[in-house]
Formats: sequence, C-alpha cells, structure tokens
Amino acid sequence: MTNSQRLRGALAPVVTPFGVGLRPDAARLARHCRHLVERDVGLAVFGTNSEANSMSVPEKLALLDALVEAGLPPARMMPGTGCCAFPDTVELTRRAMHHGCAGVLMLPPFYYKGVPEEGLFRFFSEVVQRVGDDKLRVYLYHIPPVSAVPITHKLVERLMKAYPKQIAGMKDSADDWAHTKSMIDAFAKDGFDVFSGNEKPLIDNIKSGGAGCISATANINPGKIAETYKKYATPEGEKLQGWINEVRGVMQGYVMIPALKYVIAHYGADGAWTPVRPPLVETAEAQGKDMIAKLDKLGFTMPGLKQAMAVAAE
Amino acid sequence: MTNSQRLRGALAPVVTPFGVGLRPDAARLARHCRHLVERDVGLAVFGTNSEANSMSVPEKLALLDALVEAGLPPARMMPGTGCCAFPDTVELTRRAMHHGCAGVLMLPPFYYKGVPEEGLFRFFSEVVQRVGDDKLRVYLYHIPPVSAVPITHKLVERLMKAYPKQIAGMKDSADDWAHTKSMIDAFAKDGFDVFSGNEKPLIDNIKSGGAGCISATANINPGKIAETYKKYATPEGEKLQGWINEVRGVMQGYVMIPALKYVIAHYGADGAWTPVRPPLVETAEAQGKDMIAKLDKLGFTMPGLKQAMAVAAE
Repeated sequence: MTNSQRLRGALAPVVTPFGVGLRPDAARLARHCRHLVERDVGLAVFGTNSEANSMSVPEKLALLDALVEAGLPPARMMPGTGCCAFPDTVELTRRAMHHGCAGVLMLPPFYYKGVPEEGLFRFFSEVVQRVGDDKLRVYLYHIPPVSAVPITHKLVERLMKAYPKQIAGMKDSADDWAHTKSMIDAFAKDGFDVFSGNEKPLIDNIKSGGAGCISATANINPGKIAETYKKYATPEGEKLQGWINEVRGVMQGYVMIPALKYVIAHYGADGAWTPVRPPLVETAEAQGKDMIAKLDKLGFTMPGLKQAMAVAAE
Repeated sequence: MTNSQRLRGALAPVVTPFGVGLRPDAARLARHCRHLVERDVGLAVFGTNSEANSMSVPEKLALLDALVEAGLPPARMMPGTGCCAFPDTVELTRRAMHHGCAGVLMLPPFYYKGVPEEGLFRFFSEVVQRVGDDKLRVYLYHIPPVSAVPITHKLVERLMKAYPKQIAGMKDSADDWAHTKSMIDAFAKDGFDVFSGNEKPLIDNIKSGGAGCISATANINPGKIAETYKKYATPEGEKLQGWINEVRGVMQGYVMIPALKYVIAHYGADGAWTPVRPPLVETAEAQGKDMIAKLDKLGFTMPGLKQAMAVAAE
C-alpha cells in the first residue's frame, strides 16, 4: 500500500446519536456519516468525541456493521479500536479489517497510569500479532489530557521498527503544535502519517509533511475544513484557516461533545441529536443559545444538514 | 438486610493468573480464592489488582461463573463491575446478582476526566435502575491515583438519598486516612460501610466505625490481616498491625501487581503465577529476589499456599 492510498486530509471523530434508552441510533449516525463523506471528510468513528468508551464492544461492532451495510465507504474509515483490555482491541480491530477499513485509531490501554514503555509496546504488539494482517494500518492515539497515558517518541520508534507495515501514523491530540511537529520531523520520512488532533494547525501540518487533522469540529464544519486542506498552499486557504479557527475558538468555550450535538440538533433541526451517555451531560439551554449566537455571528451554517437529517421524518 | 449480613473485615482484590496465550486461568484463580476464604479474607475479584480492566466482559463473566461453580461462596464476594460503558457495568452487575454476590465494587466511568458530578450521578443511577434489584449492594470505588475520577462526598450524599438500599459503602484507595475518616464520619451512621484501600489504617478504620479493608497485600498476607481485624481491640491486635504494616511497606517498594504475583509464585512454588497482561510487565528477577529477601527477613511466610497450589500438579 502506498501513501497515496492512505487516509489523508480532514477526518471527524464522528459523534454518536443515542435514542430511546440511550441506545446507539445507527440510522441517524449513518445519515451524519454520509453528510460528512459528501463533504470530503473521513470517518474516525469511535473516537473520544464519539463517546466510544461509553459504548460496549458489541454495540460498536453492531454500529460498524450497520454503517458498512448502509453503504458508507470503509476506505474512508478509521474506527477507534483501542480499549483497556487487549482482547477487546483485537476483536474491534479484526472487525474493522473484515470490513476493509483504511485504518484504525488505537488508544493505549488507559486504566493504569505510569506504566512502562515496555508494557505499552507489548500491548500494541499483542494486538498487531493477534490480528495478523499485513493490511492493518494502526494510527496511535496520543491524547494525554484524557487518556493520561502518552505515546512517546521512543515507543513510536520501537513499534515502527517491529511492525513497519502496520504502524501507519498517529493522531496527536496533545493540542501542542511543537509536539506534533516533532513527531512529523522524526517519523514522517519513514511513512508515518501524523494527524493533528484539531484543525487549528492544519496548514502548518500539511506544509511540514503531516497528513491532515482528525478534529471534533469537523463534525460541524466539514466543508470548510476539507476546503482548507485542499487549498492549503493558496491565499484563500490561509483565509479559510483563519475562519475555521474562529469557529473552533467558539466551540472550545463549551464542553465539546454535548456542544457538538447541540449544534447538530440546532442546524439540523433534529432535537434527537442532543442526548449523551453518562458521565457526560447535555449542554444547558442558556449555554446552547449563547453558543449558537456566537456561531451565527461568524456567519456559520451547516449547509445540507437539515436535508440530510430530514430523512428521519420519512 | 442488616449490617451484620454485610461484608466486613478484610477482603483481597484477588490477583488473576494468566496461562497460555495470556488467557485467564480459572482453576488456579479458584485455588487462590479458596486459600483466601479459608483465612477469612473476602473476595473482591476484578479489582485494580486483579487486572480487571485488562480483561474483556465475557472473560470476567466466565471467571465469575467458574468461581461459583467451583464452590466459592458468593456471600463472601464483592466483584468489581465498574466499566467506562454503563451497559458493561450493568451486565457484570446483573451476573453478580444472579450468583447472589454480597456486593459489587463499582468504579466510576474513568475515560473522561473532569466530568460533572451530575454525569457521575447519572451513570450510577442508570446502573442501579437497570439492574433493578433491592438486594443490590454497591460499594463505590474511590481510587483517584488510578481512575483520576474521584467520588466526592456530595456524590455519595446524592446517591444515598436516591438509592438508600443499594448504595452500601465505599472502597477508599486514596491512601489518605484523613479522607477515609471523613467519609466514615459523614456516612457510616446511615449504614454506609467504608473500607480502607489497604491495611495500614485497619484498626483505626474499625475503631472509627469503618467496615475493614480491601487490600492488595491481603493476597499474600491474608491470615495476619484477618487476625488483626478480629483482635483490633487488643494489644495483640496492635502488635499485629505493626507487623502487617511492615510487610505492606516492603511491597510498596515495588510495582504492586507483578510483585504480588512474584510473591505468590515464590511462596506457592508455582511459577505459572507470574505473567501479567500488558500494559503491565513482570517483576525482574533481581528485584524479585531483593523483595523476597526483605520479606524473609520479616519472618514472612505464606502458610498453606504451597499445598493449595500443588493441586495443580495432580
């Protein structure tokens, strides 16, 4: 597999709608995924913003099956498969491979803290060896503010040496461009694709040799983020970068996951989007209205979303 | 159910042996559980020290079934059932209820950090309501150094008000006696049983109105810890407390989970105990020998363990 067939550009850690009894709503998720793919945004389903760790393994397997059955392209998918227990990670990764997903995004086991690099190396080794597929493309998920278990340069180096085919890249959600750049500088030359964890450094990422971004806000601002990626080398791209950063800036003032759902419910005219699973809590109305007012002021819209979600009423 | 039927005294978060392919070894686990129960130590299987979060839900369900089938008493069991996803917690808790376990030890969902108290309240509410059994006894698991999600006094208060039958107590693994005492002082009068997360403050815990301890080192020092509990009001108890604390002190110099397994392998003459699942790593030989030398110097032994483990060779 050459780099040209690899995932690049903008991906969204797709938010997961929950219906009656807080059950995952596969049909509504598929509609949102289609809306994203039509705007050239890839599907990092089962990420942090997807509330993936608030779902059981059987729930995630069923959702992935449903998305593929709904005709969404596995070649544009990078499902999150990293759990605390390696048998769970292996099972989810195998299913992703079965469907031909382009890659998987893999959290380190995140219950124990301060674990040795050797232990993390063994975890990823167990998974790669048990899945046993040369087509596997693992993107390591560095998100210390949430997982509290970092992926170090040394660990990446060891894993790339041991599994040069399967260790494909990283999502860096440390929200520190200097750190992302250090990963690109160290490993991009060997085919390691580094995605920024949000769109703020998108153009810098591409110009430095990175692969793009996997960003929460790509759920609500897919078209403009994807356009920024395509036009990164142009003055128009620079202008777009400024605007998407303003949208991101508004969203960072709120608790991200419920806020994204509030925005989708609002611009999609589909209130069924708001529920979150505990331990998260929905955005309060007053906060939500404040957020929408700020977005409106930026000229923010979600073109096509209302039509995409209206299928629900059929 | 009155307090006298509740779990009290010393419990061990039972370490889990892993055999070929790092599969849980139910037979060996049952032998260790029997060894503990015979020494009046209760079975907090699937705790932090059990590597519970390194096992899948199906693996834990199968292990619990196997322990009950092996004749171990559910009345002495407090399996850990708290996962990040409430459907997993519900499934494990239901199975524990099905077997008549005396209680369950419940971690908060631990992936997201800095979540609102309301979100944690909703998580435990979902579980209690979905399990829907008045016989359920939930012990909340406060272990901020690992989970990074604390159980606050305010949360305990809300949960006890909402579910006075089911919210039964806490394991406090903050390793801060002042904190444990504050929980006892606030809630013990209402039947909330507070276990210390280790044996160091055992006598203080009992004298203050607590329920005992759930301690990693009860895996290797069960008899003396249980004896300390029984004799807490006597000078002999005080003397025992000093000695068990010395043993604990030695163990705290090492990474606890692999160190416990090393000690069991050594005194049980059963090397099959040493494997851990990643991200943990086995105790290095040099460290292990150093640890055993220190324990030997204290006159530490594990009476009966070799005979208990020898069944393996039959």
